[in-house]
Amino acid sequence: MLGGAAVHFSLAASFFTEVRPVGPVGEDFGAEQFEILESRGVLTDDIERVAGGQSFFWRGRYEYDLNVAHTEDTQLGVFGEFAPKLSAAAEAADMLFLANIQPDLQRQVRAQCGVARFCGLDSMNLWIETAKDSLLAAIAEVDCLILNDAEIRQLTGEPNLARGARAVMEMGPRAVVAKQGEYGAALFTPEGFFALPGIPLEDVRDPTGAGDSFAGGFLGYLDSHDGELDESVLRRAMGYGTVLASFNVEQFGTERVAALTREEIEERFAQLHGMTQFEPLPAL
Amino acid sequence: MLGGAAVHFSLAASFFTEVRPVGPVGEDFGAEQFEILESRGVLTDDIERVAGGQSFFWRGRYEYDLNVAHTEDTQLGVFGEFAPKLSAAAEAADMLFLANIQPDLQRQVRAQCGVARFCGLDSMNLWIETAKDSLLAAIAEVDCLILNDAEIRQLTGEPNLARGARAVMEMGPRAVVAKQGEYGAALFTPEGFFALPGIPLEDVRDPTGAGDSFAGGFLGYLDSHDGELDESVLRRAMGYGTVLASFNVEQFGTERVAALTREEIEERFAQLHGMTQFEPLPAL
Repeated sequence: MLGGAAVHFSLAASFFTEVRPVGPVGEDFGAEQFEILESRGVLTDDIERVAGGQSFFWRGRYEYDLNVAHTEDTQLGVFGEFAPKLSAAAEAADMLFLANIQPDLQRQVRAQCGVARFCGLDSMNLWIETAKDSLLAAIAEVDCLILNDAEIRQLTGEPNLARGARAVMEMGPRAVVAKQGEYGAALFTPEGFFALPGIPLEDVRDPTGAGDSFAGGFLGYLDSHDGELDESVLRRAMGYGTVLASFNVEQFGTERVAALTREEIEERFAQLHGMTQFEPLPAL
Repeated sequence: MLGGAAVHFSLAASFFTEVRPVGPVGEDFGAEQFEILESRGVLTDDIERVAGGQSFFWRGRYEYDLNVAHTEDTQLGVFGEFAPKLSAAAEAADMLFLANIQPDLQRQVRAQCGVARFCGLDSMNLWIETAKDSLLAAIAEVDCLILNDAEIRQLTGEPNLARGARAVMEMGPRAVVAKQGEYGAALFTPEGFFALPGIPLEDVRDPTGAGDSFAGGFLGYLDSHDGELDESVLRRAMGYGTVLASFNVEQFGTERVAALTREEIEERFAQLHGMTQFEPLPAL
């Protein structure tokens, strides 16, 4: 079914801002798939449909507690030959998310999108193991790394997450988001530490794409904020990322987020706020 | 070195209230060990020193990321023959923590401490596997289960933690605390859900006893609160549990908590508050 980092990210971010995904698809990506994006207002001009090509394909399974995924099949398809060439409109974006892919491709996109005021980057263990120098160069060029906590440890060689996050900030980014699956997500900045739990759900169907939906809520909210992206704005963005990720896992693929409303997002954001607040002193 | 659930719990709780641990020790538990407890004001009359006996002993090792412990050696020692007989003062306690041990022993203590207004219980995978009926009976007799999240899943047969916590509450307890290692801890009550992250530390020496220090901060704070133990009080107690656990792991054994001050606790409690709060609406 329809998936992929750019799709999950775009749908999640579409509730906050104009989104323009860049990437190749095959002939199997047709009117039905475009319609899911376009009905959410996602601008699809920079999606390149390759004649005779097949879209990137992933199949996996999850363990008992859903925190561990096992890949069963990956087919690069049209991504094998992809050379990003951004449109003028894409080049002018002032917020950029480099979804997980070979880091040299991320750098090519970054270089073409020079005016962005904030740039986030995701990656994975595969690139840490096979293209670490490229990945480090890509990380140095962004404002925020958004990565699983185990991958932050692997990337930095620091078993301690706080040390690992500091090591990343010394590479360039001003913020590090550690994704922690159902445990939530943590934000490290020079100003301090902030963490949110995952929203507890009794019915979790499919964690696939949750990290990208998180990034979509996070960067989408940041893009909707005109002022300075200070600590308090980043914290609210963490909240919207958490909310979008929680909707993502409720149904398979893009089903839930594609059918979502901004009102449902705000309602769950308020619930998340209620789940995390406490009074430091006894009420008088 | 000195350790054990009752020791870690007692030292942590001693910052909030009078603590009276009940249990047997061997001749290897001497003046030096009693002094560590008594210097924190812990009442040691109900610690039974068995002539010719050896104290319970555990040795283990931790994996790379410290979330996984492996037991290398366990010697029951004087616990093998232990039959709890509480003093009149212990029987009169109005707050009770049943630390992890064979659940029939927990039930014997619970039966002797009938006036407690609030009772917490910890356990472990061993008892889920070997004494499940006894454990279920013990859980039905307490107000709050405090257990690792993986063990809540194992106990209830629910891979989903929210469903597992609800299943525990249907057994009797009005609250469930899911301990999540460095990710923090979550509180489930009929009123809702609350979660706190672990406090990020760049120097973690020894996670042993962190769960018991959490329980000591949690129940110790509750005991210091004279009024109703409502949701807001439980949330603050979660905060004190988190703070005591964070100090526990900074040094080996009881070293850090034994040397702690209430001022340091309050300072870190305020830091934790700052790490978890966010404004739901943009500042005007």
